[in-house]
Amino acid sequence: MGEPTKPLQQPTRPRVIIIGGGFAGIHAANGLAHLPVDVTVIDRNNHHTFQPLLYQVALAVLSPANIAQPIRTMLRNHPNTDVLMDEVTAIDVSARTVGLSSGARLTYDYLVLATGATHSYFGRDEWAPLAPGLKTIEDATEIRRRVLLVFELAERQMLEHGWHPPLNFVVIGAGPTGVELAGAISDIAQLYMRRDFRHIDPAKSRVLLLEGSPRVLGAYPPDLSAKAEAALTRLGVEVHTQTHVTAIGPGWVEATGSTGSRRIDAVVTLWAAGVQASPLGKLLGAPLDRRGCVLVDDRFNPPGLSNVFVLGDLAHLEQDGHQVPGVAQPAMQMGDHLAKILAADLRGAPRPAFRYFDKGDMATIGRMDAVAKVEWPFKAHISGFPAWVTWLTVHIFFLIGFRNRLSVFAAWIWTYFTFTRGARLITGDQRLPGWQDQVDAGPANPPQQQAARD
Amino acid sequence: MGEPTKPLQQPTRPRVIIIGGGFAGIHAANGLAHLPVDVTVIDRNNHHTFQPLLYQVALAVLSPANIAQPIRTMLRNHPNTDVLMDEVTAIDVSARTVGLSSGARLTYDYLVLATGATHSYFGRDEWAPLAPGLKTIEDATEIRRRVLLVFELAERQMLEHGWHPPLNFVVIGAGPTGVELAGAISDIAQLYMRRDFRHIDPAKSRVLLLEGSPRVLGAYPPDLSAKAEAALTRLGVEVHTQTHVTAIGPGWVEATGSTGSRRIDAVVTLWAAGVQASPLGKLLGAPLDRRGCVLVDDRFNPPGLSNVFVLGDLAHLEQDGHQVPGVAQPAMQMGDHLAKILAADLRGAPRPAFRYFDKGDMATIGRMDAVAKVEWPFKAHISGFPAWVTWLTVHIFFLIGFRNRLSVFAAWIWTYFTFTRGARLITGDQRLPGWQDQVDAGPANPPQQQAARD
Repeated sequence: MGEPTKPLQQPTRPRVIIIGGGFAGIHAANGLAHLPVDVTVIDRNNHHTFQPLLYQVALAVLSPANIAQPIRTMLRNHPNTDVLMDEVTAIDVSARTVGLSSGARLTYDYLVLATGATHSYFGRDEWAPLAPGLKTIEDATEIRRRVLLVFELAERQMLEHGWHPPLNFVVIGAGPTGVELAGAISDIAQLYMRRDFRHIDPAKSRVLLLEGSPRVLGAYPPDLSAKAEAALTRLGVEVHTQTHVTAIGPGWVEATGSTGSRRIDAVVTLWAAGVQASPLGKLLGAPLDRRGCVLVDDRFNPPGLSNVFVLGDLAHLEQDGHQVPGVAQPAMQMGDHLAKILAADLRGAPRPAFRYFDKGDMATIGRMDAVAKVEWPFKAHISGFPAWVTWLTVHIFFLIGFRNRLSVFAAWIWTYFTFTRGARLITGDQRLPGWQDQVDAGPANPPQQQAARD
Repeated sequence: MGEPTKPLQQPTRPRVIIIGGGFAGIHAANGLAHLPVDVTVIDRNNHHTFQPLLYQVALAVLSPANIAQPIRTMLRNHPNTDVLMDEVTAIDVSARTVGLSSGARLTYDYLVLATGATHSYFGRDEWAPLAPGLKTIEDATEIRRRVLLVFELAERQMLEHGWHPPLNFVVIGAGPTGVELAGAISDIAQLYMRRDFRHIDPAKSRVLLLEGSPRVLGAYPPDLSAKAEAALTRLGVEVHTQTHVTAIGPGWVEATGSTGSRRIDAVVTLWAAGVQASPLGKLLGAPLDRRGCVLVDDRFNPPGLSNVFVLGDLAHLEQDGHQVPGVAQPAMQMGDHLAKILAADLRGAPRPAFRYFDKGDMATIGRMDAVAKVEWPFKAHISGFPAWVTWLTVHIFFLIGFRNRLSVFAAWIWTYFTFTRGARLITGDQRLPGWQDQVDAGPANPPQQQAARD
C-alpha cells in the first residue's frame, strides 16, 4: 500500500556521484547511505583530512595519520556506496557524465560537487614554493619540515661558524589559519625548542604576522579581533595590520605598510592570505564569483542545473545578505541537508531549502589561549583559557574515528604537560629556500651581536 | 688524594665526535654523558629511527613519528653533548678532523664512526626506484604509498573498465626484513583490506618471496627457517628459494630458479636482498670487507687507528670465528662498551675487550606469528604465538621514549583487535611504476576470469 507520491521501485536506482571527500562530501555520503540510490564518492586522495587540525601537523603536535582517515574505511558500512580514488578532468552537465584521468566516463543522475578551495596567490603562483600554504597533509609536512629545519640549520651554522642569520618567521594573512600558525610557531620557539639546543636560543626567533586589512581575524567581531591581537602580542608575535606583501623571494618578503615599504629577512615564509575555489567549479559552465565559487540557490543548485549540487567551500550561497562562510560547519550541514533534498526528490515532494545554523566560530592562539564567538546554545564572545578548552572539546568531538579522537587526545595531553612535541620529524630535502644566500651574505653585525647565547 | 694512574685535570677535555645517531651512536653518547669529555653527535637526519619497526610504518600499522625521535631530544640532558644535523663529507685521520657539507671542519681526539648500512643492489643501482628497500622513514612511507596505491588503482581500474592487472607483490630477499614485509603484505591483503573494497578482492593478491639461498632466514637455525617457511605458506605467501633475480623492470621481475627463468608481473617489488656498509667507512682508508664494513679488533679499532672506533653495522668484528651480526643488539652493546673503553683511557688503564653477548634473535611472520632463537636467559627455539608475544614485549621495551612505547602499544592493540590499520595514508605521487603499462597491455585472459568478485 504505497503512498501515491512514491514512485514505483525503479529498475535502476538513481546514480549519485559525489566529487570530493571533505566535510561536505562525507556528510552527503553518510546521509545518502539509507536512500535507494547508488553513490560513488570520487576523491583524488585516499583520505579525508580533518583540516581544522592541519596546523597541528604543521607544527609537530600531531602526526598526519591522526587527522586523516581513509575515505573508503569511513564509508565501508554503506552497501550502496563506492569509493574511487581518481582525478576528475571533465564534467558534461548535458550528457550527465564525469570524465576521469584515465579517460573513463561515469554517468550520473545527480552530481554533488564538493571539492573545496585551495590557496590563492593572487596570480603570483611563483610565490607558492617560497611561501607554502596549508590545505593538505603534504602542505603540513612541508611546513613542518621547514620550521624544524630552521633551528637545525641555525645550530649547525652557529656551531661551525659562530653566528647565524636572524630567525624570522613571516606568516602572511591573519585569518584563523595565519593566527593559529603564528601562535603555534611562537610556542615552538619560546617553549618547545629551548631545552634542545646549546648554541642558539630559539626563543630569540621573531614571528611576524602580516595582514592587509585593519585587524586580525577580520571575519570575527572587533572585540575578539582585539583580544586575539593582544594574545598574539603576549606570545611575542609582531602583528602588522594594513601591511601588504608586494614581493616574496627566497629568504625574504617585501611588504608595504603605514611606515613605507621594507624588506624583511625571513627564514620561513608561510602563506595564509588567500583562498580560491577548486578549479572543478569552472567545469560546470555556471556563474562563479570572483574567487571561483559557484553561485548556488538555497537548494545548492547553480542556475538551471537542478540535478547538480555544489556544497561546502566551493559553493557561494547567500543567506540574509551574507555569504555563508567557507568553513567546516556549513560544509557539514550542507552535506547533511543534501540527503533531505534527494529524499524529497525520490518521494516526489518539494525540495526543502537549506538554512545555515551558525553555532559559532573559534581560533586558537598558541598554547592555552583562543577566541570564540559562540552563537549556540547561548550567544557569547569568549577568550583565553575557557575559549581554548571549548576549542579542544569541540575539535575532539568532531574528529572522525574513535581511534583518532583517542590518539589526538593523548597527543595533546602529552604535549601540554611535557612541553614536548611528539612528531618532530624532518623528512625529505634538507635545504631551505634562501638560507644559503643569507649565510653567504655573512652576518650583518659582528658575530657577537648575532650570537644568541654563546 | 688522587690515584697515581689518574692524570691531572686537563685544560681542554678530549673531544669525541660520534658520526651516526643509530643504536650504536646513541648508546655511545649515553655512555659518554658522565665522562669528562666533550661529545658532538653528527647525523644527517634530525631523528633516530627504531629500525626494527620500520616495516610496520611501511605497512601502515604505525606512523613515522611513533618510531622516530629527535636525536637532540634524546640527548638533551647530557650537558657535555652537542648534536649537529649535518652530512660528513671527509675524515682526515692524521689531522684528526671531520669535514662537513658546509666546508667546515671539526677536530676530534676520538672519532666514533657508526653510520650503519644501506641497501645494496649488487651494482644494479638502476633497480632502486623500481624496487625500494627499507632503511629509512622515507623508504617506509614510499613502500606504504606503493602498497596502498595498488588496491586503489585496482579498484579504479575495475570500476571503470571491468578488470584489473593481477595483484602480485614480489619481495626479493628472505632475511628478517623480507620475511616481515611478505608476511605483513599478506596480512594487509587477506585481513585488513577486504571490507573496504567492493569491486576487487584484495585477498586474491599474491605475495611472492624470492630468495637466492636454499632457505628463508638463512642466519637462523634450520628448524626455525622451516617453521618460518611453513608459517609464510599458511599466510598464502609463495616462497621461492634458490631463486635469483636477474632483472627488474617497471611492473615485472625476472627470476631464475630450479624451473628455469621466468618473468613475473609485479605491481609492487620490494628489495630486501642485500646490504652494504655506509660509504663513510671508506674515508678512513682502513681495510674493508667485501660489503664495505671496516675490519676492527675487539676494541673497535681499525688497524693502526687507536683513536678511531667503528661500531654497529659498519664494523666487521670477528668473534669465535664468526662475524658479529649487523643487527640492533650488538650495535647497542658496542655503543655501551665504548664508554668503558674511553673511561679506561682517561684513567690510563688498559682498554677492555668487547664481547658480544647474544640474547637471541627473532622475526615476526604476519599477525600473531613469529620465530625466535632465544639464547638468554635460557636457550630455546620458539615459534608461533609465544614467539610473537616475546617479540612484542622486547620491541616495546627497547623502543626509545615513554611516549613512543605508549603510542606503539596503543596502535598494536587497536590494529590487532579491530583489524584496522591506523596509518593508511597515501601521500605524494599517485602513480605506480609499470601499472599503466600493464593496464595498456589489457587483460591476458577474458575480463570475467580476471575479475575478482564482480
